[in-house]
Amino acid sequence: MGLIHNETGTQSLIGYELDVAGDDGRARCHLQLDDRHLNRQNILHGGIAATLLDNAMGATASLSVDPTGKHPFATLSLTVNYLAPGHPGQVQAIGRITGGGSSTLFLEGDLRHHDGTLIATATGVFRKSRPEAI
Amino acid sequence: MGLIHNETGTQSLIGYELDVAGDDGRARCHLQLDDRHLNRQNILHGGIAATLLDNAMGATASLSVDPTGKHPFATLSLTVNYLAPGHPGQVQAIGRITGGGSSTLFLEGDLRHHDGTLIATATGVFRKSRPEAI
Amino acid sequence: MGLIHNETGTQSLIGYELDVAGDDGRARCHLQLDDRHLNRQNILHGGIAATLLDNAMGATASLSVDPTGKHPFATLSLTVNYLAPGHPGQVQAIGRITGGGSSTLFLEGDLRHHDGTLIATATGVFRKSRPEAI
Amino acid sequence: MGLIHNETGTQSLIGYELDVAGDDGRARCHLQLDDRHLNRQNILHGGIAATLLDNAMGATASLSVDPTGKHPFATLSLTVNYLAPGHPGQVQAIGRITGGGSSTLFLEGDLRHHDGTLIATATGVFRKSRPEAI
Repeated sequence: MGLIHNETGTQSLIGYELDVAGDDGRARCHLQLDDRHLNRQNILHGGIAATLLDNAMGATASLSVDPTGKHPFATLSLTVNYLAPGHPGQVQAIGRITGGGSSTLFLEGDLRHHDGTLIATATGVFRKSRPEAI
Repeated sequence: MGLIHNETGTQSLIGYELDVAGDDGRARCHLQLDDRHLNRQNILHGGIAATLLDNAMGATASLSVDPTGKHPFATLSLTVNYLAPGHPGQVQAIGRITGGGSSTLFLEGDLRHHDGTLIATATGVFRKSRPEAI
Repeated sequence: MGLIHNETGTQSLIGYELDVAGDDGRARCHLQLDDRHLNRQNILHGGIAATLLDNAMGATASLSVDPTGKHPFATLSLTVNYLAPGHPGQVQAIGRITGGGSSTLFLEGDLRHHDGTLIATATGVFRKSRPEAI
Repeated sequence: MGLIHNETGTQSLIGYELDVAGDDGRARCHLQLDDRHLNRQNILHGGIAATLLDNAMGATASLSVDPTGKHPFATLSLTVNYLAPGHPGQVQAIGRITGGGSSTLFLEGDLRHHDGTLIATATGVFRKSRPEAI
């Protein structure tokens, strides 16, 4: 309940879990980071980090209008800052709404190792998809 | 020659080809986009778009110091703007250096469908990894 | 004709000219950069660079719907990359639309010295203000 | 003590105060926002918001190595999200270090009205200037 697996192609491919069960209105993406998610330097690929952050932030936006976290929001813009290398093990991305109105929301997110060390932060602008676009 | 496949975990997982063979100093990522790369709205996931852009831009940075495009550059910051939905079919991300010096480079990138329509643009700051970090 | 001076408080304060006369649909901000625009390192302050870019990009968005370039667009998000120091003399920021639809537009901009050397690049998301918001 | 006025051209021109006196390692920019800082819609110009954020974040970076907050850091990249209009009255920008190492720092900042309402948030990458560059 509230844990979403394999619901989209990308989620199945990369292997993360989307958790919209928290009562704080914030969605989380959990990934057991392994060799499949690394880059040439054997650290977490920046694009995988962006994927987890984008999804946690978009689902957090969705939770503001839909308790199942499934109403789609389109990402207009996403900025990721890479603070420290990500290493194999459990990592979690989490979103937070910072502002916005009825259709456009501003979010921030962070991605951390299990021990709490920050890997990356992100901010972005998301827009609620209209029914006809779903 | 100049086409790199399956060299990193992320590249194998997502299934794109990195092309550093161009004589224009610009690296390209080619992806045959299919269901595995889609989000809940059945369009290209923003994180996969970011992955292709980040890799094309980082490899373009690398080409400025290494003709094989393999010398690693770390992404410090990446901003992606999502202009239009990405649909199944062949897509290509390409990087371009806009400025910088001996260790920090600024890049832009764009991601397009085979017919040239823009899906996303990106800008980012990349830093050359030191030998001990490789 | 097409050169706008002192129309807003910020424009008067900083002293730049907004040029919407070009037949290419791109707005330009011209500034005679002097000591008043410098930071502690005696180079162009990053915030002044952002001001010129934001204004050139927003006015370019406006030109897409209003030949006078005055219909307001609100900036949702702006990312500026600082490629090289800006020095006293004439500088110009220019905008370009990269995508978008009827209300949300994506723009890029660049800021250059008179000799063409790049100082900064920017991308941003802008939204057309509704009549009641003007 | 710890309040810096008119030290740079930009600070004098725009009229904000830089406060590096806090014992929390965070620099603040205070501005009495008035007509001179508005745009065509009679709200705070996005570029002035960026100026206050950039300066508060850069000075916060400086405080990590210099208790006077004057050692210069260059902004490599700055992303500003505009959450709500800024109106005349007292506003404050404040910076916070989120990560980084000995020469490159990642910062976030926010800009608020006196009553605490958020106007804009920012993230950025800053680099410590070398002595010869000062």
